[in-house]
Amino acid sequence: MALFTASQNHFLAHEPGLNRFRVVRAQQHMLLLDHPKTKTANRATRLAESLSHVLNLHLHPTSHKPLDLLSVHEEKHSTPTMSPRENISEKWREIQGFSDWEEILDPLDPWLRREIVKYGEFAQATYDAFDYDSFSEYCGSCRYNRSKLFERLGLDKNGYTVTRYIYAMSHVELPHWLERSHVADTWSKDSNWMGFVGVSDDEETRRVGRRDIVVAWRGTVAPCEWYEDFQRKLDPIGHGDAKVEHGFQSIYRSKSEATRYNKSSASEQVMKEVTRLVKFYKEEKGEEVSITITGHSLGGALALLNAYEAATTFLDLPISVISFGAPRVGNIAFKEELHQMGVKLLRVVVKQDWVPKMPGLLFNERLKMFDELTGLEWVYTHVGAELELDVHSSPYLKGGLNLVGFHSLETYLHLIDGYLSSETLFRSEARRDVALVNKSCDMLVDELRIPHSWYQLANKGLVCNAHGRWVKPERDPDDIPSHACQVYNDHLGIVM
Amino acid sequence: MALFTASQNHFLAHEPGLNRFRVVRAQQHMLLLDHPKTKTANRATRLAESLSHVLNLHLHPTSHKPLDLLSVHEEKHSTPTMSPRENISEKWREIQGFSDWEEILDPLDPWLRREIVKYGEFAQATYDAFDYDSFSEYCGSCRYNRSKLFERLGLDKNGYTVTRYIYAMSHVELPHWLERSHVADTWSKDSNWMGFVGVSDDEETRRVGRRDIVVAWRGTVAPCEWYEDFQRKLDPIGHGDAKVEHGFQSIYRSKSEATRYNKSSASEQVMKEVTRLVKFYKEEKGEEVSITITGHSLGGALALLNAYEAATTFLDLPISVISFGAPRVGNIAFKEELHQMGVKLLRVVVKQDWVPKMPGLLFNERLKMFDELTGLEWVYTHVGAELELDVHSSPYLKGGLNLVGFHSLETYLHLIDGYLSSETLFRSEARRDVALVNKSCDMLVDELRIPHSWYQLANKGLVCNAHGRWVKPERDPDDIPSHACQVYNDHLGIVM
Repeated sequence: MALFTASQNHFLAHEPGLNRFRVVRAQQHMLLLDHPKTKTANRATRLAESLSHVLNLHLHPTSHKPLDLLSVHEEKHSTPTMSPRENISEKWREIQGFSDWEEILDPLDPWLRREIVKYGEFAQATYDAFDYDSFSEYCGSCRYNRSKLFERLGLDKNGYTVTRYIYAMSHVELPHWLERSHVADTWSKDSNWMGFVGVSDDEETRRVGRRDIVVAWRGTVAPCEWYEDFQRKLDPIGHGDAKVEHGFQSIYRSKSEATRYNKSSASEQVMKEVTRLVKFYKEEKGEEVSITITGHSLGGALALLNAYEAATTFLDLPISVISFGAPRVGNIAFKEELHQMGVKLLRVVVKQDWVPKMPGLLFNERLKMFDELTGLEWVYTHVGAELELDVHSSPYLKGGLNLVGFHSLETYLHLIDGYLSSETLFRSEARRDVALVNKSCDMLVDELRIPHSWYQLANKGLVCNAHGRWVKPERDPDDIPSHACQVYNDHLGIVM
Repeated sequence: MALFTASQNHFLAHEPGLNRFRVVRAQQHMLLLDHPKTKTANRATRLAESLSHVLNLHLHPTSHKPLDLLSVHEEKHSTPTMSPRENISEKWREIQGFSDWEEILDPLDPWLRREIVKYGEFAQATYDAFDYDSFSEYCGSCRYNRSKLFERLGLDKNGYTVTRYIYAMSHVELPHWLERSHVADTWSKDSNWMGFVGVSDDEETRRVGRRDIVVAWRGTVAPCEWYEDFQRKLDPIGHGDAKVEHGFQSIYRSKSEATRYNKSSASEQVMKEVTRLVKFYKEEKGEEVSITITGHSLGGALALLNAYEAATTFLDLPISVISFGAPRVGNIAFKEELHQMGVKLLRVVVKQDWVPKMPGLLFNERLKMFDELTGLEWVYTHVGAELELDVHSSPYLKGGLNLVGFHSLETYLHLIDGYLSSETLFRSEARRDVALVNKSCDMLVDELRIPHSWYQLANKGLVCNAHGRWVKPERDPDDIPSHACQVYNDHLGIVM
């Protein structure tokens, strides 16, 4: 009767709200079994070793952890979570990468660090506000309307206003991409909320030296099947030899008259809104304007497609991309065209994260030497400058293979906050709240006593009504995705 | 690179707060894989089939579900969750089992149904208020003090007051029993909150015809190792041949001067408090007094040990046990002694639940015929009257093997609420909130749109402080387990 064994404790209930991680998370749990008694565990251990080998991961545990980690952490409980915002108006072009960040990445300029975190938090907002509940009729939408989003997530401090939400669909069947409601009368069967367009307010504009239009793209961990299926499928982009991955392009470009939220594509929605903002601030008000596009994982890939299109449209505007843990997107011609058009791309990558090594992990990393032999014209390549982070630099993070944790955007933000240079240890003045790292993963050392994957709703959103019954409350009508509001956007008093 | 497959989605993160279910839950997830592609899944399917065979489970799906289930469910959203409380003072002895429930179980007397649910909700309270958070310094305690418990759980309507909390430890190493904090300076390294003693208030006393002392024991699913290890280990109880399972007895009887909460054993704590209440209400105030002991799973086993002891102490008091999904506890002599002492036991069991078949599933069920051959004097046996419920009687519950769901106390309470007789369908007037079933399992049909395992704290108890940092708030000093309060219990103005 030895049916129940302790080593099965890890295979527990599905946590909705984390579908973007589901494949990796499952994999992580396969790999991180700490009772290697069973056959499964032994297989998992071997798998971990071999995967680790393929990924060139260095899995020695973090060394020299300060003993008083917890007290340091607790001392910080009563300090602000961020350095004061300084006026960077004199230096903004350098920070946006006009000189390709050549002098300011290593050591990392503190003003640049602050800006990277700001954009990363915009990307994080697209996860934090996403409705993953498949029993909700609004599954796949944003839980708050755009005027409330930053306030609800504590991001109003950044001094930006969201002016439009982006919705996307895909004509191509993409595994594990679309989050869809189980409910028949859902807000949308085809589209997902995919991010937002925003703009700096007057105060922030003064601080950063120009009116900054930001586009943040929501990510998702594309499963391996995706990369397997699509790594040979490249679609042309532009008029030259540039090609990009088929699935990313499909999400960026798909539209259908039969849908409610994608009668226009994500691309069209974004370009229309950015055009409107550029017209208003640059042409009508004569301000200096920049475009900054950000995204994590798949969102980073979409950011690059978006930057390519923006650069072909706004020939004289500074366009920068700050991506986090993004996979490769296109071929060498795509890279070269982006470079020629002056798009500035800063790729933030965690050394131990596998996603930036996709697609073509095996081909690109191992078989580069065979390129000429095999004539692989499709070989994917990375673009732009790279800021490489290392999970071992932080005394707050656990050792061990943790695929979900390595790829989590909150891990990225934590590591950036602590990054001084490639040669130095974690920055002791780092102030960002360490607890955030464990929002959707299990990366913090136990001594900190922060539960793993703690970002969750009370009772999964059910509330007890006056009769003592647990019901799903109606969503605030304000926060129900409205197709109409998207079309007639009258913020800022602009008549379209 | 087919490392990530959809069939692994089920093996996801550990949900604390459900440790009592951890083994069964893990098993369930092993069994219910819906992508039987992998080796693991095939093994799991075979395991499910063979387990189902051993348990004599009938796994045909629920038939004839009303099509308007959701609308019926939603209509009920604005009705009270329980039938009105009627005065049962004339009939209370019958309801407490004086005639062994012979005439009132099938069909089930509606007043008895109402009382069974009341006691079941007391047992459920011991789960709902338990602190399972291993990063909390109060892990293993009750989250609220005894004067707040019922109010916080919406049980004040029942008309009882909690007068004492019960703490238990075990000298025997019991697998997966004790919930223990990871934190060094924990409230207790050895003890867990194990239930409470309460008493009916004046109004409830008038309604039920006597002053009712209630003892509710917290359960936990004892893992199979336990049954394996202990099924041959019986300890004597009393002065005759009666013997009971070693592990249950250890939890009930262990104490140590070196601990803070178990200088006296659970048994001593309960008996002292019940004695005090009996003295006050019966001897001083001359009231009629009853003792009702309840518990689910392991809690049901402890309830029986407690009833045995109470019966030897209070020879002339009516003592009843209402247990839910409890395993077998002792040998035939134990059963006979309980019967002779006049203890009334109503065992509520779900036909598909495996726990009441333990320990000795194989021996007792299959090998009964060999008893004489093998001379198995230790054979465990059940005691008292049985009310058998069937998950297939409810149109709200899913078909399919669901070991966690079959054993969940909330499933029991739902089925009792809908039970009319062994011959009839689910009671259409059943009013108890159906959503409660899914608190800690996944038993409700999807059409109801109730998320599974929804009973959870917002952000696992972390809150955002004034500086924007996520911290674990200090527990309300009122709700910190206090050793002192337990000793000098001055509720009701009694000086001890």
